[in-house]
Amino acid sequence: MTRVAVIGAGPSGLAALRAFQSAKKKGAKIPEVVCFEKQDDWGGLWKYTWRTGLDEYGEPVHCSMYRYLWSNGPKECLEFADYTFEEHFGKPIPSYPPRAVLWDYIAGRVKKAGVRKWIRFNTPVRMVNWNQKKKKFEVTVHDRPKDKMWTEDFDYVICASGHFSTPHVPFFEGLDGFNGRVLHAHDFRDALEFKGKNVLIVGRSYSAEDIGSQCWKYGAKSVTTTYRSRPMGFKWPKNFEERPLLQRIVNKTVHFKDGSTKEVDAIILCTGYQHYFPFLAEELRLKTTNRLWPANLYKGVVWQNNPRLFYVGMQDQFYTFNMFDAQAWYVRDIIMGRIKLPKTDAMKKDWTKWLKREEKLQDAEQMIWFQGDYVKELIAATDYPDFDIEAVNKTFMEWEHHKMEDIMGFRNHGYRSVMTGNMAPKHHTPWKDALDDSMEAYLAVK
Amino acid sequence: MTRVAVIGAGPSGLAALRAFQSAKKKGAKIPEVVCFEKQDDWGGLWKYTWRTGLDEYGEPVHCSMYRYLWSNGPKECLEFADYTFEEHFGKPIPSYPPRAVLWDYIAGRVKKAGVRKWIRFNTPVRMVNWNQKKKKFEVTVHDRPKDKMWTEDFDYVICASGHFSTPHVPFFEGLDGFNGRVLHAHDFRDALEFKGKNVLIVGRSYSAEDIGSQCWKYGAKSVTTTYRSRPMGFKWPKNFEERPLLQRIVNKTVHFKDGSTKEVDAIILCTGYQHYFPFLAEELRLKTTNRLWPANLYKGVVWQNNPRLFYVGMQDQFYTFNMFDAQAWYVRDIIMGRIKLPKTDAMKKDWTKWLKREEKLQDAEQMIWFQGDYVKELIAATDYPDFDIEAVNKTFMEWEHHKMEDIMGFRNHGYRSVMTGNMAPKHHTPWKDALDDSMEAYLAVK
Repeated sequence: MTRVAVIGAGPSGLAALRAFQSAKKKGAKIPEVVCFEKQDDWGGLWKYTWRTGLDEYGEPVHCSMYRYLWSNGPKECLEFADYTFEEHFGKPIPSYPPRAVLWDYIAGRVKKAGVRKWIRFNTPVRMVNWNQKKKKFEVTVHDRPKDKMWTEDFDYVICASGHFSTPHVPFFEGLDGFNGRVLHAHDFRDALEFKGKNVLIVGRSYSAEDIGSQCWKYGAKSVTTTYRSRPMGFKWPKNFEERPLLQRIVNKTVHFKDGSTKEVDAIILCTGYQHYFPFLAEELRLKTTNRLWPANLYKGVVWQNNPRLFYVGMQDQFYTFNMFDAQAWYVRDIIMGRIKLPKTDAMKKDWTKWLKREEKLQDAEQMIWFQGDYVKELIAATDYPDFDIEAVNKTFMEWEHHKMEDIMGFRNHGYRSVMTGNMAPKHHTPWKDALDDSMEAYLAVK
Repeated sequence: MTRVAVIGAGPSGLAALRAFQSAKKKGAKIPEVVCFEKQDDWGGLWKYTWRTGLDEYGEPVHCSMYRYLWSNGPKECLEFADYTFEEHFGKPIPSYPPRAVLWDYIAGRVKKAGVRKWIRFNTPVRMVNWNQKKKKFEVTVHDRPKDKMWTEDFDYVICASGHFSTPHVPFFEGLDGFNGRVLHAHDFRDALEFKGKNVLIVGRSYSAEDIGSQCWKYGAKSVTTTYRSRPMGFKWPKNFEERPLLQRIVNKTVHFKDGSTKEVDAIILCTGYQHYFPFLAEELRLKTTNRLWPANLYKGVVWQNNPRLFYVGMQDQFYTFNMFDAQAWYVRDIIMGRIKLPKTDAMKKDWTKWLKREEKLQDAEQMIWFQGDYVKELIAATDYPDFDIEAVNKTFMEWEHHKMEDIMGFRNHGYRSVMTGNMAPKHHTPWKDALDDSMEAYLAVK
């Protein structure tokens, strides 16, 4: 029997499981699917843990999320086309749910699909080798609770291990002598730790924006962000400011490029993540920066050098859950022989075309349309339920606009679901005043 | 040519390199020795980094040391028999050197030996498999700066990767809702972060004792330690106390087994380390708790199930550097055919005898004599310079006595080197007042 290994049970890996299960439900004969998950539950990044650094088994902690995290984009842009928020919660809910609500939604679909039995939890993948003689992947895995390692053969491998878990941590002069707390965004957990403190945030992307906002919301004395190229440019509250790049640190004093200084208690490095696949042999390993179109992936998913290996979710993202779905359905159809791969040269020509277009993108708006076009192409090729990509693109534009208008208030807006046609209700409490991030508090009617 | 892979360039791995180099210097023909080191420099745990969690390449940070760390035992107990402190520093120095001084000493010997060229830095080992057909180990390594992974064959493997780098991190009820900083000792770096704060230390072993003392020394408002079985029992200063086991945490309040509570700002888990070898195939992997005699190791170093694999430094330790030397010399002599291994049964019988003796040990004094006897046996079998183990055992006893007498003052004592016969001078400043831990400050004559 054909065997498929899925690495990771986060949104991308679960999309793969759901894709196969959905084909099975429609009567197709599907391969054996085995998903190896390092964590003790599904949800990938959306599974919260208080742990940082290394977990109870010594494995790198996957979670980069933190308490009080709310979605930083409208849920209407990530909604599953085959399982709406309304189906899951039994009613329309507001547009920027906290983490626990999104985790519940992700889990709800796969619970209904009954695929949990396909997953081996607490089982990191140690090594994947391609055996050319056998035409099989040899996948070495490690059951941590039993502390047993073994190797199994698979015909296909879907790598869905994510790329927002291994921090990129640069050095700044004097960081090794800083007399306060220094951490990467990956290890940020509870903003209350920084209440009453002067916090320096290094970076200008989503982590910087959101962790800075969190610290402000939960009572930091001041938040200072520092950028290399240009400020985020939002209208920040008065104890929140942006300064040019950090140059050096002397004890607790940080020095910026414009010659200004500030005394800070904590430095949070919001300096991004690395694609990190130490478990993939040299010729199988994707090497890329975080970008909308990584090279060597036909249709963004097929590994050019060995088309029995697939990557799901490895792009930088505006589109998320439903893009992972589009990719997973596409990969499934290749494995099941419904989609035939072109020859090597043609594959290369195809992804090179996308790559060239990606290199010319100028701004967020163009990037959103680019990724929307990509999702559209994938969806057209499979039986994943079609949805109005252009309407989603427009929701992204509204979101960007709302952020520029009020960075601490954009989450108070609601948007229309392209899946159900229904408007999201307004949340009962403005984001900046809603300190309880539990699912109960969020779904409560007040 | 026979090839030996050494995993790790810390005190144990460097002992292995020095052992081979010393044989070569005396005219012997030695095998090719290749040492794979994850960090960018040698010294293992003794190499300090400000980094925590994952390093610049995404690899788990090896360092469990922190700023201002001074040796917690007399240097006279760990002195190399073939390279004294006096030889390295050109004069006798006090007995409890800060980390940087010990790092310099470790590095000095191997620098003199000229073995740096045998080490491939920034190169973690990903997987070691034994190929029974070829009778070789297949060692897969990853050059991180070049991001290249490859596999090489070796006749012998010496695993010297340490066992104080992968934290054991237990959960306590409410830890996931604690509104302050929670970390394992492994991630502790600068005690000044905790100045003016109420710190809870979970544990009662060396990390708890020393990190608690550090926090006190650098101005923590209070230090509270919590123990499972029994308190450390030292004479602590007035803002330092021991309480029975932590039961649960509610926001910032910690509850103890005796019903008492305390509000704390930070929780430091000094809860020990795991033996963690995710890069060793199932049948090669040592599985043990931290103890003086791990099972399945003949003479504490030969892997019973495949005697071409060796472990150095995997015991819990009173003896350290010179024990690693004794082990490394012994392993070298097996590889070079100078020591012949007995049959499997005889090996098992031998280590079982030690194991049974270890299980009966009652207190630190007995443990020190046990480990001393072990070191003595190994040294007698090789050309490692002999030294007076009983005198070292007695120095350990004095050290224990000095700690009981004054936990914040024991480092002000000096001891006699069994290698040179010379007394260590007193340090110019009492430990509790010596805030500068640099080598310059320590070696200065005041």
